Amino acid sequence: MKRDPVAIVEALIAAFNRRNAASIAELLAEDIVCAGIPLEPAHGRGATMAMLAPFLAAEEIDWRILAIAANGTTVFTERDDRFRFAGKDWTAVRAAGVFEIDTNGRIAAWRDYFDLAELERAMP
Amino acid sequence: MKRDPVAIVEALIAAFNRRNAASIAELLAEDIVCAGIPLEPAHGRGATMAMLAPFLAAEEIDWRILAIAANGTTVFTERDDRFRFAGKDWTAVRAAGVFEIDTNGRIAAWRDYFDLAELERAMP
Repeated sequence: MKRDPVAIVEALIAAFNRRNAASIAELLAEDIVCAGIPLEPAHGRGATMAMLAPFLAAEEIDWRILAIAANGTTVFTERDDRFRFAGKDWTAVRAAGVFEIDTNGRIAAWRDYFDLAELERAMP
Repeated sequence: MKRDPVAIVEALIAAFNRRNAASIAELLAEDIVCAGIPLEPAHGRGATMAMLAPFLAAEEIDWRILAIAANGTTVFTERDDRFRFAGKDWTAVRAAGVFEIDTNGRIAAWRDYFDLAELERAMP
């Protein structure tokens, strides 16, 4: 029995908050398409983990789920993605994300919507 | 019996596509807080309608719902918001929106997440 789609997305956010790349990778489908919407998408688990690496370089991550909803295997999150990079104050990116869960219980699509300038201000 | 929250949000999008300001206003709570997330929110129905006016000035509007999900009275949409302004080609803003429906079946909160630069490119 696979975990329900909301639990899978909650597990992804929890893995980010532990900065645990192995746990994140386990939750991603081999053929995931991962997009920060104003940017080009990453195709595949390896490219996605490479795209995520600069975020996981933070000393602390505290992504807060403000709202979550599912429709079948599609899950939405509204989030406040907080980061503390070395020698910096906490920063934040406000985002709404859409996740599609495949039949193996892995994340096959992840599309985050946010303001790119806000992301750039949040990153070191 | 109030319509279900998903139907209320679908009615809002349909009203946009008809460019029907009166129908839109009817769906908004008097005390709505409406935010394009990188921007300052509008407080109240009047301020919200003023914020929406430049969009409703398009000659054609074609907002497409790519995905929709609800959790109680919270509704998420993933959308491709398409506009055709006078003398211009079609433009589009990709957005994910969160809506909160009040006990009167009106939209009391609307938060759209998108890239501000993409919005600015889409507007005349």
